Order: sequence, then C-alpha cells, then structure tokens
Amino acid sequence: MPSIHDLTTPALLLDPDALQRNIDCMSEALPGERLRPHVKAHKSTTIARRQYEAGHRRFCCATLREMEGMAMAGLGDDLLLANETLDARRLAALDARITVAVDSPATIAAAAKGGVREVLIDVNVGLPRCGCAPEEAGKLADRARRESLEVRGVMGYEGHVVGVAERDQRSDGCAKSMQLLVAAHADVGGEIISAGSSGTYDCNRWATEIQAGSYVLMDTAYAKLGLPFVQAFVVLATVVSVSDRYAVADCGLKALGMDHGNPAIEDAKVLFCSDEHVTFVPEDRPARVGDRIRVVPAHVDPTVAYHDRFHLVRGEEVLDDWMVDLRGW
Amino acid sequence: MPSIHDLTTPALLLDPDALQRNIDCMSEALPGERLRPHVKAHKSTTIARRQYEAGHRRFCCATLREMEGMAMAGLGDDLLLANETLDARRLAALDARITVAVDSPATIAAAAKGGVREVLIDVNVGLPRCGCAPEEAGKLADRARRESLEVRGVMGYEGHVVGVAERDQRSDGCAKSMQLLVAAHADVGGEIISAGSSGTYDCNRWATEIQAGSYVLMDTAYAKLGLPFVQAFVVLATVVSVSDRYAVADCGLKALGMDHGNPAIEDAKVLFCSDEHVTFVPEDRPARVGDRIRVVPAHVDPTVAYHDRFHLVRGEEVLDDWMVDLRGW
Repeated sequence: MPSIHDLTTPALLLDPDALQRNIDCMSEALPGERLRPHVKAHKSTTIARRQYEAGHRRFCCATLREMEGMAMAGLGDDLLLANETLDARRLAALDARITVAVDSPATIAAAAKGGVREVLIDVNVGLPRCGCAPEEAGKLADRARRESLEVRGVMGYEGHVVGVAERDQRSDGCAKSMQLLVAAHADVGGEIISAGSSGTYDCNRWATEIQAGSYVLMDTAYAKLGLPFVQAFVVLATVVSVSDRYAVADCGLKALGMDHGNPAIEDAKVLFCSDEHVTFVPEDRPARVGDRIRVVPAHVDPTVAYHDRFHLVRGEEVLDDWMVDLRGW
Repeated sequence: MPSIHDLTTPALLLDPDALQRNIDCMSEALPGERLRPHVKAHKSTTIARRQYEAGHRRFCCATLREMEGMAMAGLGDDLLLANETLDARRLAALDARITVAVDSPATIAAAAKGGVREVLIDVNVGLPRCGCAPEEAGKLADRARRESLEVRGVMGYEGHVVGVAERDQRSDGCAKSMQLLVAAHADVGGEIISAGSSGTYDCNRWATEIQAGSYVLMDTAYAKLGLPFVQAFVVLATVVSVSDRYAVADCGLKALGMDHGNPAIEDAKVLFCSDEHVTFVPEDRPARVGDRIRVVPAHVDPTVAYHDRFHLVRGEEVLDDWMVDLRGW
C-alpha cells in the first residue's frame, strides 16, 4: 500500500472516515430532499455520489462545468444551477433535470432561448450579489411563465450572515433574510424555497431545502462556528528548509485559497505564504527538512479548485485517488 | 475568426502585442544570459519559447513540474530549480542541463543521491523563507563539492524588498541584500550570482543574472512600482446580474489570486469577490447583463495557476489558444 511519504507535495489528503461522518451527520439533520448538497466546495463527482448514497438526489452547482460533470456522472436527477447564466444552451443538451436561477429579464430570456425548462427566481436577501429585489420576484415569475418556463419557486442566499461567529446573531440574521424570501415566495409560487449553507443549516427553518457544501470537507473559517462537522481534508506539504527561527514547507498561494487568510498548522504559528511556500514557526518540536506536515486551509472552495485529485488517506496509508473532476468552467 | 463574445467566462485573455513589448523591453535592459526568465508567473512553454527567441536560453522554475515541462518542450539548455527539493530523482531523468538550489545538508544529499550534478547555494538575504545563513554558504559549498556536485555559484532572493513602492528605498533594500549575497559568493565561488525579480531588475547591479517572471504579464501590484512593462493579460468576465447599486460578473476567488487583495476593473469600484463572482460599482456608464468586462488581477502568479489556457486576443478577435501547460507539481 503506498504511503503519504510517496506522494508529490503539495497534495490534498482526504480522510474517508471524517468525510463519511460529516455526510452522515448532515443527513441525520437534513434527510433526503431537505438537503440539496452544493458541489462547488468539493468539485468531485465521487464525493457527490457518497452524498447521493446518503439519500440526497438533488444537487446544486455554481458553474456550467459542474452541471455538465454531474449529468455525465449520472447524478442528474435534479440539478440546480444556483447562479445566473447567459449560456443556457450548454445545459439544455444535458441528460438531466435542469433548473436554473434567474434574476432578470435577460437571464429569463437566455434560459428560455437556450432550451432550459425550469427556473427558480433568485431573490436578493441581503448579500450584495445576484438576486432580484424581493418586490420584483413576482413580476419576474410572471415573465418567466409567459416565456413558457416552469417556475419551481425561489432561491435566496443569506451569504452575508453564514459566517457570523455568534450563533444567535447568525440565526437572527438568517431569520431576517428568510422573511424577505418567504414574502417573495408568496408572490412567486412553486414548491421550492432554496437557501442556506453549512453555516445556517441548523437555524434556517424557512427554506424547504438547504444548499450546503463545505460541511463535507470543512476549513478553519467554518471551524470557528462550532458546527458538528470535522476537518476531513488537509494539504500535505514537505518541509524543504529550516532555519533557527522558522521552517518552510512547499505549500503556498498556488495550493491554497487565500481570501480568508493564512492556513493553520498544528503546533505551529504560520507567518506567511508565498507562491510555493508557507513559512511557519514550530511551537512544539523543531521541524526537520523532509518532514511531512498537514496544512489546514482557511477556505475550502478555492483551495480544492487548485488541485486535480484527493488522495484518500487513513493514517499514513494512501487508499485511493479521487479526481477533482468538476474544475474549470 | 472567433470573438471574445464566444468564449466561456471566466477566461484568461493575453494581448500578444503587449506580451512582445514586455519581452523586448526586458531583453533590451537585460540581454541574453543577464536574464534568467522565471516561468512560474506564466506557466506556459509557449510564452517561454518567445523569451527563448528573444535570446534568453537559461530559465528558472519553482516546481518540479515546471522543470519537467520545460525539458519536454525542448527548452532545457540550462534550467534552474530556484527552490529546494527532496525529490531530485525526477530531475536527473530529464534531457536537460539541470541545476538545483540547495540550502542544507539534507537538500545537498537529496541532489547528489537523486543524480543531479549541479547546484547553486541558496542564501537567505532577508526574506524569511528558504536559503542558508550567509555565513554558512561556504561550508555548504564545500560539503556539496565533497558529494561530487558542481557548485555554479549562489542564489538569493530579495523578495522582501521587490514590492517596495518607492524606487530609492527598493534600490537601497536590494543593495543591502546583495551585499550579503556577494559576500557569500566570495566564500562559495562559481560564476553565477542569481537574484532579483521584475521589481528589482533595473536596480540589482550585483547579480550576474536576474530571475524575473511577472514582467511578461504584469498585475496591479507590480503596476504600482512604475515599471516600464504593460498589462498583457486580464480575466474576461460576463456581467450576470445588475441591481440599481452594483453589478456582478462571473469572475471570483477560483479565477483570481487573492493574496494581494481585490482585482481592478476599469471605470469601476470593486466591492468584493466570492467563489464565482466579483461585485462592483460601475462609475462611468451602467453595466448591462451580458456585458463582457476585463478584470485585472492583483497578483499574476496564483491567478494564472487557476486557468488551463490563455486566449490570444487582439481587439475582440481570438487569434489562438496557448495552454498553461506547467500547472500542478
């Protein structure tokens, strides 16, 4: 059996037991269609299949490439592009049930012209990003129906509150956002109110389905929220240089999403990252050149997007490789 | 001829005229072997070949994958891995002249055992990253020679000063670092003093060769230094949503290196990026859904590493695709 010492670094390591624990924990809280797993965090149809086997048949994607890959992998029972697109033709060709978020006459026209048949009205519930004004949602739904699109309901992402550290504040913010979404839903109709994330999965009581993705793998940002999910992946790195004040490992800006800040290393203080390096101060025992260390990213999604595979690892044994097969656009 | 309006976004656009202008400008300042172009910024053997054709036959890489790709592309006249590695065996197998940076007994042993024949002693000149203490350089060179390695000289990267905005201060910092490197070189011997970057290419008078890479493409961070190089690449994005206060385009954290901060958009104020989106306030004319906009990254290297190709574009015409073929490790 190959060992982690045989791997080229930097390398994504995936703990299959932690992964399954996270999937099971979420499935217990939100069984079946109560969860619409978001694939954008892991970008892997192999991980999506584990979620499917746990009872979740509806999935959520952020890109056309993710939609295509999920359909090709046979995971297309009910795929939602939780994002606006002008290029809906790529979706209509897929052997899958396709729903697209729309928030404007232009995206409605693109969906209709591209051959997509079902949409959700994307409503802005506070995050300054996509989504129509709540009071416009009903009119957009009417317009979509006039263009012969089936309107399945509404979507609205409370992304501005999902990272709030204090649970009560996070829950209050979620409630305010969902009041807007529920009101819009009354104007729109349909069966679906789609919202939420790993940060609000247990306090969003208004959504009919929660779009959570990061819970499967986790990162240091989500770890601060006191969620019941465990860190299931790390970036393995090799110490390549040691001085009397710090050590340097081969895991840098091109192997880590950096928008949430520096990664973490157990028993060490991270000083900074450069293109191919992380400089850190070991706080327990001295580092030696050749040591393999585990680097925990601050933000899972843009980290995974830099890598082409997960190495499944138990202890130091490499059990399998799972491709990150939904990268690109 | 395909147009940029046919491209899937986000997409890297490369301006071949700006690229050639940057290559020519640098070649005039640092002809032939005075420049050892660093491929880590562009990760493209096609761009490296343009640099080769401009007279630079020696190249510099940050990863084993870059070394392998350059050798396979026939650009292996003189390849320097300007980084430490424990996995030198991968290099010895290449059909190329290979030199590796070493800064410890362990990396010297790895080079010798792996079959690499030539090294530079990597000296720490102030950046808290790789490199031995300057006073250790001579002893390491002796050790390398005892292991039958040819010591070609020294390397030392003044990375802590290359981004200093004020040119005199940048130049002073460079001078201080290079005093350390020149002193170490006196202890080490060999013909090469390798150092520098796009930020110090014109004030580093001590290095025999400058390791510059970013100048070919440029970014907003380097643009602040008043260098004579022009922005040669951007990320093309599509506006997918517009509100009365801002607009949203499909170019986010997974299409941009974010460690230097937000990207720039002409005539607009960038508010923030999320995984697949940039939210911005247009300041000139209103944005419309479907508009194609050009996003200028703050940091070239980790941006390019997210993409698999450059689209060569003149005006709105797409002339060719050049692969980013040196990604991964």
